[in-house]
Amino acid sequence: MKALVFKNNEISLNEVPIPEIKEDEALIKILKAGICNTDIEILKGYMNFEGILGHEFVGIVVEAKNKKWIGKRVVGEINIGCGKCEYCLTGRKNHCPSRKVVGILNKDGAFAEYITLPISNLYIVPDKISDEKAVFTEPLAAALRITEQIEIRKNDKVLIIGDGKIGLLISQVMKLMNCETYCMGKHKRKLKILENKNIKTLLKGKNIDHRFDIVIEAAGKRGGIKQALKYVKPEGKVILKSTYHGRVVLDISSIVVNEINVTGSRCGPFNKALELLERNLVEVESLIDGEYSLCEWEKAFEQALKSEKLKILFRIN
Amino acid sequence: MKALVFKNNEISLNEVPIPEIKEDEALIKILKAGICNTDIEILKGYMNFEGILGHEFVGIVVEAKNKKWIGKRVVGEINIGCGKCEYCLTGRKNHCPSRKVVGILNKDGAFAEYITLPISNLYIVPDKISDEKAVFTEPLAAALRITEQIEIRKNDKVLIIGDGKIGLLISQVMKLMNCETYCMGKHKRKLKILENKNIKTLLKGKNIDHRFDIVIEAAGKRGGIKQALKYVKPEGKVILKSTYHGRVVLDISSIVVNEINVTGSRCGPFNKALELLERNLVEVESLIDGEYSLCEWEKAFEQALKSEKLKILFRIN
Repeated sequence: MKALVFKNNEISLNEVPIPEIKEDEALIKILKAGICNTDIEILKGYMNFEGILGHEFVGIVVEAKNKKWIGKRVVGEINIGCGKCEYCLTGRKNHCPSRKVVGILNKDGAFAEYITLPISNLYIVPDKISDEKAVFTEPLAAALRITEQIEIRKNDKVLIIGDGKIGLLISQVMKLMNCETYCMGKHKRKLKILENKNIKTLLKGKNIDHRFDIVIEAAGKRGGIKQALKYVKPEGKVILKSTYHGRVVLDISSIVVNEINVTGSRCGPFNKALELLERNLVEVESLIDGEYSLCEWEKAFEQALKSEKLKILFRIN
Repeated sequence: MKALVFKNNEISLNEVPIPEIKEDEALIKILKAGICNTDIEILKGYMNFEGILGHEFVGIVVEAKNKKWIGKRVVGEINIGCGKCEYCLTGRKNHCPSRKVVGILNKDGAFAEYITLPISNLYIVPDKISDEKAVFTEPLAAALRITEQIEIRKNDKVLIIGDGKIGLLISQVMKLMNCETYCMGKHKRKLKILENKNIKTLLKGKNIDHRFDIVIEAAGKRGGIKQALKYVKPEGKVILKSTYHGRVVLDISSIVVNEINVTGSRCGPFNKALELLERNLVEVESLIDGEYSLCEWEKAFEQALKSEKLKILFRIN
């Protein structure tokens, strides 16, 4: 099969064997997949990952021991736990110390014709959700994770830093929670997408004289956390969404003096994401900025690397 | 009156006028005061403070409009709010944006013969509590602040990083909460104080192969937060207690990937601290490593700066 492999700091489109399924797994034929900012960070060295890239996808099950799965259109959670540790046994496989993570840690990803995944990671995609929309299940779930982690009160004043793909999804989720939602970014075109949904926007660099109950850092860059600590109220909450390669120089005392609560936030609930997509409560089509075949991977990544672009998809099977 | 003034990066014992009280204030004759790590950080540039140092004290009210306060032995909260902002009006004067903080921000401190404070900041010290013990009200309140901020469950495995003054107080508080409490430090003598109270200790540098539900950073140094992030479990909580001058280089992605919750923690409840001191539930006398007059300030600070020393007191009136 064709697969987009990252090795020795280079991407190449290789012909590799179709992976074989284990007892509890399904073989999935990938329909579409999306390029995430984490993929871009992996190219810079994040997680030291080598292998097939990609973790946002929708596909069709073509092989599984339990035959009822065959032919089902599915999306898949990306964390694969050991099934035995205190985390796996308490429903938190995302934090299993020996987990694998699709396209990120010790597990080949979805920029390929096929992928294997444990059946327990799969969710059937409702017919109403198109392939393009289904690819957004994983990042939308990540946006929804925030609502599981902190108490969000109606009318909380929330600032999302970053008008990238995840920032636009989080902004829509916060608006759904009836928060007074602001998204700060530097791309007028992207902010316009939110303005069309009655979400307030702030152009980065302009003077902002108010402070926020909750600030969500989704800039994908090192400066984001400093901005978050600047704009959050004393005793306010900061959510960190961005993972990136490298370190940050930070004034920790401001967290102490202002008694800020900072929470890291990663993967979230697929079932809730699928429900929002099915009910059209979160709109994702305006976030798609291009679709390419695997053979066009150079062009696809060239587009994805441009800061003015939003989601770039691969059309695979 | 005699006062220990920090100005132009130098401490000097000066003769200054006794401060005059405003309508809502009391004039307090200082009995004893304690040197805190924050005082040491101020000498390095923290908060750019200039004025009379010191914020841990016990004294006698000698002047106040409401005569019933005169002669009372008191301790005092160190934050003075404007009384009008959203923070002051919701009982959070500690976060008033225009607050003054005794010996730290725009308000003269307690290393002097007299201090003024709003009556609303004062707490009468029960007779059972000696002057020496009463000086610990402020740092013990700061230790207790943690219990107001995060849910602490019985049997939570808690690590306190740092065997300094505040670390030893926090360790005793966590033990009182029925946590499985460990204190990590590098001074055998200090750790021995906790061992005598049946609190587990870990000598820094030794291999620690387990992880903790809650890690409280009280090392007073830049490396503390890195250690905290190393020893906390995924989805665990980190409390930051140390304020220090300077910045830290940090791998923020580990907070995101492990979904750590980090909370800054500052000043706490004086009433609860006094109750614990009165009931002898927290023992502080073994933490006193010397007592000096204001005239002996050079010797006092020389001792306080030694990392093997615990609390150094001033005996003032």
